[in-house]
Amino acid sequence: MPEVILGLGKTPEQIVAIAAALLERADRLLVTRVEPAAVEALTAAIPDAKYHEIARCVTVERTAVPKPDGVIVLCAGTADLPVAEEAAVTAEIIGNDVRRVYDVGVAGLHRLLDQLSLLREARALVVVAGMEGALPSVVAGLVNAPVIAVPTSIGYGASFRGLAPLLAMLNSCAAGVGVVNIDNGFGAGYLAASINRTALTSRAD
Amino acid sequence: MPEVILGLGKTPEQIVAIAAALLERADRLLVTRVEPAAVEALTAAIPDAKYHEIARCVTVERTAVPKPDGVIVLCAGTADLPVAEEAAVTAEIIGNDVRRVYDVGVAGLHRLLDQLSLLREARALVVVAGMEGALPSVVAGLVNAPVIAVPTSIGYGASFRGLAPLLAMLNSCAAGVGVVNIDNGFGAGYLAASINRTALTSRAD
Amino acid sequence: MPEVILGLGKTPEQIVAIAAALLERADRLLVTRVEPAAVEALTAAIPDAKYHEIARCVTVERTAVPKPDGVIVLCAGTADLPVAEEAAVTAEIIGNDVRRVYDVGVAGLHRLLDQLSLLREARALVVVAGMEGALPSVVAGLVNAPVIAVPTSIGYGASFRGLAPLLAMLNSCAAGVGVVNIDNGFGAGYLAASINRTALTSRAD
Amino acid sequence: MPEVILGLGKTPEQIVAIAAALLERADRLLVTRVEPAAVEALTAAIPDAKYHEIARCVTVERTAVPKPDGVIVLCAGTADLPVAEEAAVTAEIIGNDVRRVYDVGVAGLHRLLDQLSLLREARALVVVAGMEGALPSVVAGLVNAPVIAVPTSIGYGASFRGLAPLLAMLNSCAAGVGVVNIDNGFGAGYLAASINRTALTSRAD
Amino acid sequence: MPEVILGLGKTPEQIVAIAAALLERADRLLVTRVEPAAVEALTAAIPDAKYHEIARCVTVERTAVPKPDGVIVLCAGTADLPVAEEAAVTAEIIGNDVRRVYDVGVAGLHRLLDQLSLLREARALVVVAGMEGALPSVVAGLVNAPVIAVPTSIGYGASFRGLAPLLAMLNSCAAGVGVVNIDNGFGAGYLAASINRTALTSRAD
Amino acid sequence: MPEVILGLGKTPEQIVAIAAALLERADRLLVTRVEPAAVEALTAAIPDAKYHEIARCVTVERTAVPKPDGVIVLCAGTADLPVAEEAAVTAEIIGNDVRRVYDVGVAGLHRLLDQLSLLREARALVVVAGMEGALPSVVAGLVNAPVIAVPTSIGYGASFRGLAPLLAMLNSCAAGVGVVNIDNGFGAGYLAASINRTALTSRAD
Amino acid sequence: MPEVILGLGKTPEQIVAIAAALLERADRLLVTRVEPAAVEALTAAIPDAKYHEIARCVTVERTAVPKPDGVIVLCAGTADLPVAEEAAVTAEIIGNDVRRVYDVGVAGLHRLLDQLSLLREARALVVVAGMEGALPSVVAGLVNAPVIAVPTSIGYGASFRGLAPLLAMLNSCAAGVGVVNIDNGFGAGYLAASINRTALTSRAD
Amino acid sequence: MPEVILGLGKTPEQIVAIAAALLERADRLLVTRVEPAAVEALTAAIPDAKYHEIARCVTVERTAVPKPDGVIVLCAGTADLPVAEEAAVTAEIIGNDVRRVYDVGVAGLHRLLDQLSLLREARALVVVAGMEGALPSVVAGLVNAPVIAVPTSIGYGASFRGLAPLLAMLNSCAAGVGVVNIDNGFGAGYLAASINRTALTSRAD
Repeated sequence: MPEVILGLGKTPEQIVAIAAALLERADRLLVTRVEPAAVEALTAAIPDAKYHEIARCVTVERTAVPKPDGVIVLCAGTADLPVAEEAAVTAEIIGNDVRRVYDVGVAGLHRLLDQLSLLREARALVVVAGMEGALPSVVAGLVNAPVIAVPTSIGYGASFRGLAPLLAMLNSCAAGVGVVNIDNGFGAGYLAASINRTALTSRAD
Repeated sequence: MPEVILGLGKTPEQIVAIAAALLERADRLLVTRVEPAAVEALTAAIPDAKYHEIARCVTVERTAVPKPDGVIVLCAGTADLPVAEEAAVTAEIIGNDVRRVYDVGVAGLHRLLDQLSLLREARALVVVAGMEGALPSVVAGLVNAPVIAVPTSIGYGASFRGLAPLLAMLNSCAAGVGVVNIDNGFGAGYLAASINRTALTSRAD
Repeated sequence: MPEVILGLGKTPEQIVAIAAALLERADRLLVTRVEPAAVEALTAAIPDAKYHEIARCVTVERTAVPKPDGVIVLCAGTADLPVAEEAAVTAEIIGNDVRRVYDVGVAGLHRLLDQLSLLREARALVVVAGMEGALPSVVAGLVNAPVIAVPTSIGYGASFRGLAPLLAMLNSCAAGVGVVNIDNGFGAGYLAASINRTALTSRAD
Repeated sequence: MPEVILGLGKTPEQIVAIAAALLERADRLLVTRVEPAAVEALTAAIPDAKYHEIARCVTVERTAVPKPDGVIVLCAGTADLPVAEEAAVTAEIIGNDVRRVYDVGVAGLHRLLDQLSLLREARALVVVAGMEGALPSVVAGLVNAPVIAVPTSIGYGASFRGLAPLLAMLNSCAAGVGVVNIDNGFGAGYLAASINRTALTSRAD
Repeated sequence: MPEVILGLGKTPEQIVAIAAALLERADRLLVTRVEPAAVEALTAAIPDAKYHEIARCVTVERTAVPKPDGVIVLCAGTADLPVAEEAAVTAEIIGNDVRRVYDVGVAGLHRLLDQLSLLREARALVVVAGMEGALPSVVAGLVNAPVIAVPTSIGYGASFRGLAPLLAMLNSCAAGVGVVNIDNGFGAGYLAASINRTALTSRAD
Repeated sequence: MPEVILGLGKTPEQIVAIAAALLERADRLLVTRVEPAAVEALTAAIPDAKYHEIARCVTVERTAVPKPDGVIVLCAGTADLPVAEEAAVTAEIIGNDVRRVYDVGVAGLHRLLDQLSLLREARALVVVAGMEGALPSVVAGLVNAPVIAVPTSIGYGASFRGLAPLLAMLNSCAAGVGVVNIDNGFGAGYLAASINRTALTSRAD
Repeated sequence: MPEVILGLGKTPEQIVAIAAALLERADRLLVTRVEPAAVEALTAAIPDAKYHEIARCVTVERTAVPKPDGVIVLCAGTADLPVAEEAAVTAEIIGNDVRRVYDVGVAGLHRLLDQLSLLREARALVVVAGMEGALPSVVAGLVNAPVIAVPTSIGYGASFRGLAPLLAMLNSCAAGVGVVNIDNGFGAGYLAASINRTALTSRAD
Repeated sequence: MPEVILGLGKTPEQIVAIAAALLERADRLLVTRVEPAAVEALTAAIPDAKYHEIARCVTVERTAVPKPDGVIVLCAGTADLPVAEEAAVTAEIIGNDVRRVYDVGVAGLHRLLDQLSLLREARALVVVAGMEGALPSVVAGLVNAPVIAVPTSIGYGASFRGLAPLLAMLNSCAAGVGVVNIDNGFGAGYLAASINRTALTSRAD
C-alpha cells in the first residue's frame, strides 16, 4: 500500500518533510488536498512527483504494481470533477485500472441508462454527487455490486456545504450503498480499492 | 374555494365548533390532520361529513363543482400514502379530477418510465417522497410541467424527521421544482390546484 | 428552451468551453452565478453575449421568442435585488415579459397594498425575501395565483445564511406557496415561466 | 410581585410543597405549565387556587393590586391560545388589565388593520405566532410601542418545534421587537408587565 | 425618528444614493454596518456625516432632539464593544443620553455588583454578551427594569457564531429579558429607546 | 436475492398483504422493523415465518442457499444488539454464514485485540457502535478488509439520537470505512453481503 | 472501583443478568438510569440492593471503603435534582463524602455568595444547570478548584433538550471548566471522584 | 496565576494596551490566539515577550515559579499541533513541566500502547483530537487519572468545524472525561494545571 498524507491543515514545509521521511522507506506516495504552494514545494523537492491538477493530488510511484480493472467512478459533471478525480487517482495508485463515467446525472437519465452494461461489470462503483445527491440511489437500483457514495460540497443555500447530498445518500432507498464524508474522494477510492482487492485476493485462493 | 381547518393542535370540540361556524356560510369544507377522536366528533355533528382514512382528512361537499383533470399525484409506496392522499383529497375538493400514480420509485426506474406519456399530460405534478427524496428530481427531468415536491417524515436516523428529503428537494438538479413543508400534502394539493386553475382560467380568456 | 450553465464551481475556462459547445446547437443561452473573471472571458469569446450586472448572469439570444406577460417578481429592497433580478432575467430569456415590483416589504404594508390590482393580474408571482421571510405569506394571502417564494442569504446572525427565511416560507400560514432553494433566483424564474407556459399552452388548446 | 413556580419537570408533590412554602410569605402566586395531576393536587391543597385551563396556569391572589391597562396580547388563532393566555394571565396577576386580540393573522391582513387604532394605544404588545412567525414583524411595522414576540411550537415538519418562527422573529425587518423563548408566554407577559410598570412608575415621578 | 440604512449587502454607491434621497426629507440619519469604502463615500458625499469607528456606524444629525437618560448599555469587554457601541449610538441618535458600563462580566462579579445602584436607575438596559451569554441573566436577577439581551458572534468553536449566547439568553432563568438577533446592536438600541420613550411619553400624560 | 419489506410506517395489515403478494413469486423474504402486532399478524398468516426477537425481524426461507463465511459483525455490548442482529440476520438470509463478535469496545481494547486474527480473516466487517462511535475507526486501523460502520441511536443528550457516532464514523481517521444510516443494520448487512458475494463471484471466474 | 451498568436501552432481564454476573467478582455495583420495572427486578433479585429514587440509581455496597470529603455538588433547584443526585450517588459509591449545595442559582446570587467559603474548600465541584447554563461560569469565577459542568435537558423550546446549557458551558468565559454530556450526572461524579482521588493519592506519596 | 488575554476579536493596538496595563501589576502574562500583526506589535512593545509560533501564543515570564511534572498532552499528529501546543504552553506558564506525546492515534494503536506506563504516571492528561475524536475515549480506557478532551476544528465536510469530535468526546464510553470547547487548548491546559495544583496542594497538607 502507498503511504498517504492529508495535505489539509499542514504547511508546505511540513508536507515536504513528511513526504521525504516516508519516501525513505516507501516507494509509493499519495498527497491529497495539496494547495498550489505545497505543489510547488513538493515538485521542487521530489523530482519524480506527479501533480494531478483537477484531483488536487501529488503522487510518487517508484515501483509498478499490477492494476486490474473492476473500479468505476461516476459523477454528473464539471463541478464534481475534483472529488471524482481524487477518488480515481487514489484507487489508481493503490493499484487499479479505473474507468471514469463523468457525464451522467439524474436529470438526464438516458445517458446513465446507456452505460448500464458497463456499470454492471464493476466490482465496486464510486458515485460522486452534489446537489440533491440522488445519483447513488439511482445507480444502486441498477447494479448489484457495492456502491460507495460521495457527497460533494458544491452547491449553495440549503446544500449547507454538502449536508443535503450527505443526508440523501445515508437515506438511500436502494440497498448496498456505503457513504463516506463530504468531498472525501480519497476515502471512496480507498474503499473501492479495498473491495476490489478483497475480491481479487479471494479469487486467487 | 372550500373552507379549510388544520386539525393539528386543536381539540375535537374546537374543530367541531369552527366547522359548524364555517358551514353556516360555506358549502364545502376540508379538515386536515384529524385525529380519531375528532373524526368521531365531526361525523357525529355533521352527518354529510366524509372521512378519508388514509389521508386523515374529513370533507363536506354540499355543491358540486366542475373537476377537470390536469393534476397528477405520485409517490413510491405504502409509507408515503397518507401525505399523497392528503394532496389528492385537497386538490379534489378544490375542484380537480386527480390521477394517482403510487407505485413508482427511483430504485425501480422502469415502473416510472412506463408512465411517461401519462406524466407528460399533466399541468401540475405533486411528487411525494421520503428517504433520499430523489423522485421529484427524476420526474422533473422527464416532464415540462411544474413539479411540486413534498418531503415526508417517514424514515429514521439521518432522515431527521424529513429533513433529508426536504434538503434534497430544495437542491434538485432539475429546474421547475417548488417545495412545500415536510408532510404538507395539503399545501401541495392546494398549489397544484392553483396552477391548474390558473391554466384553465387563462384558457377561458 | 434556452441552454443553462450554473457558473458556480466552474473555472472561466470551463464555462467558456461549455458555452461554446452549447451554442453550436442552441440559439439561446443563460449563464448564472458568473464571477467577474468569467464575465470577461465569456464576453471576449462570445461577442453577442450580454452581461446583466445585478443579476450576475450572462445571456445570449440569437432568435426572438414571444414574450407574453403574466410573471411578476417582487422583493423588498436593495439587498435582495441580485436574486430578484436572476429570477427576472431567467424568466425573460425563457420567454416572458416580466413585471418587477421591488419596493414592497412587510414593515411598510401600504406600498404593497397599493399594488394589489396589479398583483392580482399575474399568473405566477416570484416573491424574494431575506430577513424574516414574511413577504410571500402576506402576498399569498392577497392573491389567488401560485406564489414562488425565494429566501435570500442576506442577513446576519440567526439568519444562518438564509435558513430563517427558508423555514418561514416552508411554514407559510397562507396556502399556494412553493419554495425554492436559498438565493435560487434561477429556479424561481424557471418555475414561474413553467407555470405561465402551462397556462398559455392550455389556453391554446 | 407574585411568586412564580415553573411546573415543568416537577412532580405534583414538589409543586404543592413549594407553593405552600411560598404562600406562607407571599399573597400572590403563579404556577405555570401545570399538568392535570398537579392541578388537582394544587386545588385540593389550596382552596382559593384558581385554574386557568387554556393557559395551563394556576393562580392564587390574596390581595388586590391595581391593574392599569396598557398591555395587549395578540395571536392568529386557536392553536396559539395556550401560549397567548399564559402571557395574559401572567401580566394580569402581576397587575395589568390585559386586552386580548386573538383573531388576527398575516394571511388575512384586514382583520389586523381593523384593530389599528386599538393597537396604537398599547404601551407593550405581546405578539404570539407559530407557523412562519410573521405577525410580530407586521405589527411592529404598524405601531411605535415595544413588541414582544413569542414563537410557538405549534406546526409540523420544518417548523422544527418552533425554530422556524423563532428565527423569523429574531430576523424581523421591523425594529423594536424583543423575542422570548418558544412557547414562553410567561416570559412575554412578565416583560410586558415590566415595560408597562416602568412607564407608569416613570409617570408617577 | 431618524431614517435608518442597514449597510450590509449594499454597495457604497447604493448606500450613498439611498442616504442622499432620505436626507432630502429627513434631518437625522443612521447608517449601520458600514464598511470602510462606504464610510469614505458617505463622508465625502455628506460633509456633516459623523463616523463612529467602533460602532461601525455613520450618523447625520441636523436638528437637536431632547436626550433624556434612562438607557444603560452593558458589556464585559473589548471584543463586544462594536455591538455595544452600535446599540449606544442607535439609542443616542433616536434621542437618549446613554450610560455605558463596559467592564463587567460574570467571571468577575464584584465589578458588576459595584454598579448595582446605577443599574437600578435605568428604565431599559441593553446587555451585550458573547461566550456563554450569562450576563443578561445575572443582570435581570438584580434589577426590575426590562433587559434587552444581545448575543455576539465573538467566540469560536461551539459558539457557532453566536448561537451559544443566543440560546442561553432565550433560556434565561431570570424573567424580564427580551432577546434580539446575534450582533444586532441596532435592534437593541432601538428597542431600549422605544421602551424609554413609552415611559417618558406616559409620564407626560 | 430475498424480497425485503421495511416494516416502519406500515400497518400490520399492509405488511401482511405485501408479504403474501411477494411470497407468491419469491421463496425468501425479510421483514425488518416489525412491531409486536405485525409479528403476530405475520406469524399467524405465514406459518413458516420465523421471528428474530432481538433483531426485530421476520424471515421466511423456503429454499436453502449456500452460506459461505466471510462476514463478521462486531459491537460493544447489550444496547447495540438489535442493530447488530438486524445486520447479521440480513446477511444470513441473503446467503452468508455470519460470525458475531459482540463483546468488544474501545474502553477495553484487549478484548478487541484478542480477536485480531479472526477479524483479519473477514472479507467484510460490519461494526456497530453508539456513544462516541470510535469502534469502526479502531477496527479499520487493524484490518485490511472493508469496514461498514453503523451508528446507533442508543445514547442520550449530545448523542442527538445517533448524530454523534454518525459524524464520528464519517470522519474516521482510518481509511476503508463506508457508513450507513443510524440504526440501519439492514443496510449494513446487505452491503456486507454484496461485498462478500462480489468477492466470491470473482473467485469463481 | 465499583462496577457500573448504564440502564438505558437495556431490558430489566438484561440488567439483572449483568448485575448478577458482575457481583460474582465485585463487591460494589452502581446501576444508573433505572426504570421502575428494572428497580423492581433488581431489588427482588439482589436483596441488599439500595434504590436512590431521585437519582434513579441502584447501588450495592458489600465492603466499606474510606469516604474522604473534597467533592461538592451544586445545582439551582428542584428540576435539576435527578442529575445532581446521580452525580452525588456516583461519587459516594466510588468513595467520597459528598457535600450537596442545592439552592443556588444565578438569578439569586446572594445565596451562592453566602456559600463561598464552603465552595473554596472543595477539591472538585460538580455544577449542574439547565436553562441558560450560567451557574458553572459564575462558580468557576469564584473558586480555584476544577469545575465539572453538567448541562441538563430540563427546559423547553430553544433549550433544544439541553443544547443551550451545553453550548453555554463549553463557551464559559471562566477558565477551569470541563463539561460532560447533557444529563450525565454519572460522568460528572466519576470525574470529580477521579480528581479527588488523584489529589489524595498524590498526598500519600 | 498569570494574567491572560484572548487575542481573538481584538486589534493589535487593543492587545498591546491591555498587555501593558496588566504587566504593571503582574509578572507573568499569556496572550492566546495572536495573529502575526499582533505578535509584531507585542514583541516590539514588550522586549521580553516570547512568541510560541505553533501555539500562536505570546508569553511574558518575569519571575520563575516551580514547575512540577504531572501534566501530559497527547495528540495524533501535525494538524492538531497548534491546539496541543496552546494547551502545553498554558500549563507551563501557570507552573507545570509538561510532557508531550504527539505521535499517537487510534488508527495506529501500538504507538499509544507503547507509551502506557508513561501515561499512567500523569495526574492530568490533555488529549487533543480532530477527525472522529476517538483518542480521549481510548486513553481514558487505559488510565485512571482525569482526561481533558479537546476537539479540534481540523477536518472537512461532516466534521462541521469540529462538531464531530466534540460530540464524540461528550459521548465517550469511557468515564472520567471532561470536555472543553473546540480548539480550546488554553482551557484544557488551564484545567489540567488546576487539577495538578489541587493534587499537589493537597499533598502539602
